[in-house]
Formats: sequence, structure tokens, C-alpha cells
Amino acid sequence: MHTFFHPDSVVVIGASNSPFNLGATICSALKEISPWGRDVYAVNRKAETVHGCPGYASVTDIPQEVDLAVIITPAAVVPQFVEQCAEKGIRRVIIESSGFSEGGEQGRAMQRRIDETARAHGMRIMGPNCLGVLNTRNQFCCFYGIQADDFNTFAQESGAVSYIIQSGGIVVIVLESFATDVVKANKIVSIGNKSDIDEADMLEYFDRDESTEVIGMYLENIKDGRKFIETARRVGKPILVFKVGRTGEGARAAMSHTAGMANNDDIFDNACTQAGVIRVNSISELHAMPKIFTHMPPLKGRRIAVFTNSGAFGGITADLLVQAGLEMARLSPATQEKLSRTGRIFNAANPIDLGPALSMQTFLEIFDILLSSDEVDGLLPVPSLWHPMVIDAIVELVKKCHEYGKPAAIYTPNAVHKTVSYRQKYQVPLFESPEEAVRALEVSYRQYRYGEMKDALWNLSGAGHREEHLMAQGVL
Amino acid sequence: MHTFFHPDSVVVIGASNSPFNLGATICSALKEISPWGRDVYAVNRKAETVHGCPGYASVTDIPQEVDLAVIITPAAVVPQFVEQCAEKGIRRVIIESSGFSEGGEQGRAMQRRIDETARAHGMRIMGPNCLGVLNTRNQFCCFYGIQADDFNTFAQESGAVSYIIQSGGIVVIVLESFATDVVKANKIVSIGNKSDIDEADMLEYFDRDESTEVIGMYLENIKDGRKFIETARRVGKPILVFKVGRTGEGARAAMSHTAGMANNDDIFDNACTQAGVIRVNSISELHAMPKIFTHMPPLKGRRIAVFTNSGAFGGITADLLVQAGLEMARLSPATQEKLSRTGRIFNAANPIDLGPALSMQTFLEIFDILLSSDEVDGLLPVPSLWHPMVIDAIVELVKKCHEYGKPAAIYTPNAVHKTVSYRQKYQVPLFESPEEAVRALEVSYRQYRYGEMKDALWNLSGAGHREEHLMAQGVL
Repeated sequence: MHTFFHPDSVVVIGASNSPFNLGATICSALKEISPWGRDVYAVNRKAETVHGCPGYASVTDIPQEVDLAVIITPAAVVPQFVEQCAEKGIRRVIIESSGFSEGGEQGRAMQRRIDETARAHGMRIMGPNCLGVLNTRNQFCCFYGIQADDFNTFAQESGAVSYIIQSGGIVVIVLESFATDVVKANKIVSIGNKSDIDEADMLEYFDRDESTEVIGMYLENIKDGRKFIETARRVGKPILVFKVGRTGEGARAAMSHTAGMANNDDIFDNACTQAGVIRVNSISELHAMPKIFTHMPPLKGRRIAVFTNSGAFGGITADLLVQAGLEMARLSPATQEKLSRTGRIFNAANPIDLGPALSMQTFLEIFDILLSSDEVDGLLPVPSLWHPMVIDAIVELVKKCHEYGKPAAIYTPNAVHKTVSYRQKYQVPLFESPEEAVRALEVSYRQYRYGEMKDALWNLSGAGHREEHLMAQGVL
Repeated sequence: MHTFFHPDSVVVIGASNSPFNLGATICSALKEISPWGRDVYAVNRKAETVHGCPGYASVTDIPQEVDLAVIITPAAVVPQFVEQCAEKGIRRVIIESSGFSEGGEQGRAMQRRIDETARAHGMRIMGPNCLGVLNTRNQFCCFYGIQADDFNTFAQESGAVSYIIQSGGIVVIVLESFATDVVKANKIVSIGNKSDIDEADMLEYFDRDESTEVIGMYLENIKDGRKFIETARRVGKPILVFKVGRTGEGARAAMSHTAGMANNDDIFDNACTQAGVIRVNSISELHAMPKIFTHMPPLKGRRIAVFTNSGAFGGITADLLVQAGLEMARLSPATQEKLSRTGRIFNAANPIDLGPALSMQTFLEIFDILLSSDEVDGLLPVPSLWHPMVIDAIVELVKKCHEYGKPAAIYTPNAVHKTVSYRQKYQVPLFESPEEAVRALEVSYRQYRYGEMKDALWNLSGAGHREEHLMAQGVL
């Protein structure tokens, strides 16, 4: 799998100088936009050079060795190019073209021909009907249609989150999210129809990949349920999955898109719980949640202290915490007394109402009291950004969370654009709604709990026993 | 109630030139920021003029008649100022100060004294512990702490949505939302502890208020359940309510904030359904939903056609629609045939996959085919804003929706900041997530269905019979 992310040379089959040619955008990305700097060849009818990539009429005409082929031609000619790749000795192929298993009987016949070639020559195929690979570590990117501005936004900085995404359209949304969040991409792979390489192969690769800390997945179907679950349960890193097809209509729509089999959603749901996979409920959760793992210590208990200078959010967050299976921490009279001594506080019981007038010193004392208390496992701060001091206090809070080993899911009750601009400027993990912040605490706790009980869980024989165990532990 | 929103003269009790004086910000707003232009007086110990408002040591010293008093002093002196107002003949008082029923036994005693004065003199009290009133029609605003920039953002344009909001903090969030949405405020009232005027009084007023089309509410408790429901069911306009206290912890937190009684949430939920009140699930829904009422015709049936140029959203929206109790419209072969003739479409069955390359003409033909079809009640378009033509097509779509009398809840799968900037520039009702768009269709349909069955419903005697009827109609 390594070669897909670290090729030394690539051929883009179907790249030409015709107007609107998609392959040409890949040549341009690799040669002109990215500083990746390895060899790129183009294959097209006229054997013409494309954006500085030497052109050939056939793959077999290329005199140098080639590690990876990217095919982006009409579907009808893909099988013959796969055969050329086999002949040339290329063992890694990304097929970005569509029109195979999702495109009727003719498409399926072409898919079978490709499968046979690949099997006969020990080739690994990614796709078809996909966008390919991005690796921000070496800046290798074979997504078609990428513009220089976009590339610089999401690839310039390498982060800790890797994504496995079945649909190209979702890749674009996830990429755009990096422009406004503290979390950055490590590697992204769009696996499309998964004729060969599937979600479980990629999970295994990202688990071994040292610079990946969190794995996000967008799936329209599961190719092999047992393989997925067996792989996922060996993965120690948090896995966040958004899967469509909760309903029959959703599953039907997904099948017309990437041609999988519909899966029984309840079985998938249960399997996720048993394998410690966190199922998220929207695309936005898929890119909002990772920062609770990358930027905060894990939540090791259910007891949360809320503090806010906007009283209404005490009630709103208390409802959300309880609904998420967490608890409002009970603060002892001694702790409340300590809090009251820090300044003019409206209400020292949880949720703590800070009132409008607070100094930086008061903020810092409150953080220390709550984070050091054995009555509190994590914080849900809801401070309005009404004064520059507040963001300075938040920066300090993030440091203190790491010192004390307890997380804070911070929501600033301001217009989203204000929250987003502060998040970028100060690089602090701010959430965009109280719902998001509470959900982040919930997923952090789930991940921690699963890690704690994992070994015991899988020593139990059979899914029934594991379910019972999970129920007894309050996870199901 | 009219006088609270249309006073001819106001006294701000507690406005002075001391640093950080909150009353002074109200004088400034009324005299310097807003073009409202009526008489404002200040009452303070030194009888000093504040931001051009003549100052007096007592309310009774003011020589002119005064319509409305706004009190923003420490709680301890509020009762005596209410008595001064009574003596002066002022019958409308807004108490913005806090520290009454939410502030222990001493606070409750002061509240009783105020109540007695008000009852004896036929005065109506708004608050205490509130932010007061904004009327964008005449630009009257007695919120404390308002800055000129903010005022111009939310008050310059008068819109169709009026809000009843128990908490000042939530008022600020809702106001900020107007800066980035097509929906504008009509009137906003923050009712705080509701010692006298409550949510039902305000509902009744906004129902009669001609320029209000949609009513939004944020509540921490219900003062009088029967009165609320009896009033709500007479209101013909859509009512959206976000109420905290779904859980015991949430109710407890809310009580410490605005001092109400906790209500049984299940009973409230059921009552909302019977009275046609739409309960929303977050503050963001409270400001995201009104545009489906103000900018689109009602949804009169469950059958929704989805079209997208990003195939993944077909599956995502199908799941969401089914979960919301709506249906994917079944398109007949004849309709699919018509759609296929408009251009190079990937998939003409619902969800319709437009593929990447579409002309304006193709878009317009698709709109006509779907909106004119008796197989379709409403649209869920998910077009990516990848080309300027797409937003032009959306502008045309909004017009066509009004022509055909069917709604479209439009989600553009781009970064939120891009969606928001297009929404503002072109003044089209774009939603910020697929979840929001589907929810908008759901609330539109609920409102329509309730309107249809309302009279029949309330001719049935007793809540039990009404519940049965609602269940039979598929609403419960």
C-alpha cells in the first residue's frame, strides 16, 4: 500500500492537451502546483507532452520504470490500459474513470476484465470511480481538478487526521473544512467502487502509518463486513465513520452512486459498537470531531463541569450532556466555596454562571479549581468572546487541560464566523455549536472506554457475550 | 402591549455618566444610534443629562408625560422606582435589572412588593432580568450594551420574524444571525423572569401584529401551560419554540437562571403538537428555519424530489428525508424520460444525479419538469456552487417555486462561509447543511398539515380524542 502514497514515478493515462482534459489537471498538480518533484509521464494518442510531463502513445513506450499508474480515460478503454500496465510491470493502479459496476451490464463486464488482468499479474487496483490519493507528508496528490489555491490551503500543513472516503464529492467538502479548522489532513484516499482495495485495507494501512492519529471514514457500503470489523477492532486509533444507508431509500440511492451491496444497517451499527468504531451522524461531525482527539487529552469519566457567562447555556448544555449519557458534575460545598472566592460569580453550582465581569486571573483560578478537582472529569466551557481577554484565557485553558490530563470541549456563543476566525488565529479547538461540543465529549469518552475494555471484550467468545458485556459496561 | 413597542417618550431609570453604566448605553442607543427620534429622559442621583437625555433625580420631577419606563438599577432600589412610576402615571415598565425571584428570599420579597404596586395601579411589567424590546419598524430599541455597528446590522432592515426570548444571551446570538441570513427581524422581546407579561401575552400580540409572519421563541419554562396552549392554538402563524429542560438537569439549570417552575417536558411536547407549535432542537434551528416560511410556499405533501451534482448527497438526503417522515418521490418513466432529454444526466431516477456538466437551460428545464409534476410536492436541490451559472439558476428556481406554489429547501455542498456569502449577495434561502434543509421541509409540512386539520381537531372534546385524531392523521 506504501507505493500508492509514496511513488517515485507516476504515469497519468489519459492526460492530453485537449480543452477540459481532467488528466491534464493531475499533471499540472504534480508538476506545477505541488513541490513533490518526482517523475511524471503522460499517455495520450498524440504522445504529446502535458504540463511538462513527457508524453507517450502507450505505457510500454516509457523507457523508465514506473511505480504507479493513474487512469483517467473513458471507461471503454480502461481494460486495455490496465493490460498495458501489466505488460510494463506496473503493480499499482488508480482508476479514476467511472462507468463500471455502477454503469450497467457493459460496465460490469469491463470490471471483470480488469479484475482478471490484475489477478493474473498481482496488481493492486484503487477505484474505479474515485479521486485517488493525497499525501500531505510528501505533497503527492493525484486528485483531478485541483486548483493551486485549494492545494496550498489543504496540503501546505500536514496534520494528524487521515480520511478514507468513498465519494469524490465528499472529499471536496472535507478538504474545504481544513481551511477553517485547527485539524489538518495527513492522508486522504477516495476508494470509489472498491473493486480491489477496500475500506478495511485502508484502515489497516492507516493504523500502521505513524503520522496518522485519527481515522475518518465516509462509506456508502461495506464490502466485507467480517473483514471490516476484524480489522477495525485491531486498530488502536479513534475511527469515526459516517455511513449512508440508514434507511432503504438511502441505501438504494448509494447503490446507484458507487455500486455496492446494501448492508443491514442495524447489524452495521452493532458491529461498530463491538469493534470500537464511532459512528457519526453527519458529514460535518466527520470533520468537527477529530480535534477532540488531536488537541485534547481523553475524557476518562462522565462528570462534566459547565461554566458560562451566558446563563441560558447552562440549561442548554445540561440537557445535551444528559442526553449524551454524560453527567453534570456535583460540586461539593468546598469546591463551590473555592469558586466563589475567585471573583464575583453569579452561581458557583454546576452549571457555573460566571456573570459578565471576569478578570483573566479569575478565569485561571477557575480552570485550576475545576481541573484539579476529583469531582470533575472534563469541562464544557461556554465563554462569550466579548473581550480580547477571553481568547487569551482560552489559550491558557488548552495548556492547562494538557497539564491536568482532562479535556475541555469549548463552545464560544458568538456568530460562527467569529468563532471560526478566532479558532484559526489562535489555533485553539473551538466548536461551532453546543451540540458539537457535547458530542465531542461523548465520542472522546466512548473511545476511552472502549480502549479500556477491549481486551476483556474480545476474549469473550461470540457476539452475544460481547453485547452482554458492553451492555453491562453501559456502552450499548 | 402596543406601547411597549411604540412609546412616544421613555425614561431610563439608572442611566448616568458613571463609567460602565448600562443605562447610559440605552440612552445612547435611543438618542445617538437609532433614528427613532422621540423623547428620552434619564433618572439618576445627580439629575445629570446623559447622552443628550435630560436628567432628573426622580421620575416625578419630569415635567412631560412619559409612556414607558426602563429600569436598570441595582435590584434593591427597583421597588421604590416602580412606585415613583406609579405616582407619575406610567403604566408600562421594563425592568432589566436582575436579582429578583432568581436571587433568593430577599429577591422574592422585592418581587412581591413590585407585583403589589403594579396590581394596585394597573401597570404592566416586562421582566425583570431581561433585555427589553426591539422594534425594527420604528427603530425603537431599549436593549442595554448595544453598539452602533451591531444596531445597524440587525435593525436597518425590517423583516418578517418576531422573537420572544427569555434570555438576554440568546437574544445576542439570534441578533448576530441576522447579519448572515435572508431573514430579518421584525420585533424582538426578551421577557426574562416573566413576573407579569409572559410568553402567551407576547404570542397573542405578535399574532395580531400585521408585519410579523413567523414567531420564534426561546423558553426556559412555561408560566401557565393552559394559557400558552389556548393562545398558541388560536395563532395562525408558524410558531417555532426551543425550550430547555428536556432533562431534569437542564430544567434545574434553567431555574437557577430565570427562576421559573420546572415543567414536565413530555406534557409540554404533547401540548405543542396539539396546539400546532413546532418544537425545534437547537438555537441554530431557531434562526435557520424561519426562511422556509418567509421565502418559500408551504409544502403540501410528503413527496420530495432530490437532485444533485454530487452523487453522495443523494444517499445522505434520502436517509434524512425518510427519517423525517417524508418520502422520496417516485418518478414515472414518462417523467424520467423528460428529465433525460434535458441534457447529459447521470441518473434520472430520484435522487437525480445531474452529473458535472450542466447548462443553465438544462437546470431551468429540470425545475419546470419537477415543479409541474403531480408526482412531486417539493424539491431538495443540492447543487454545488462550482460555477457562477449555478447561483443564477438558484435565483430562477426561487422564482419558479413561487409560480408553481411548491417549496425547495436548497443546500449547496460547499464550505459554509461560501454558502453564507452567496446567500447574502443573492438573497436566496440557502441552508447550511443537508440536515437543516430536510428539517425545513419537515417543519413546513407540519405547519401546513396542522393548519388543514386545526378546526376539526379542536371540535373534538378532550386531549385524548385530539391525540387520537393526530395519530390517525400521521402527525403524532
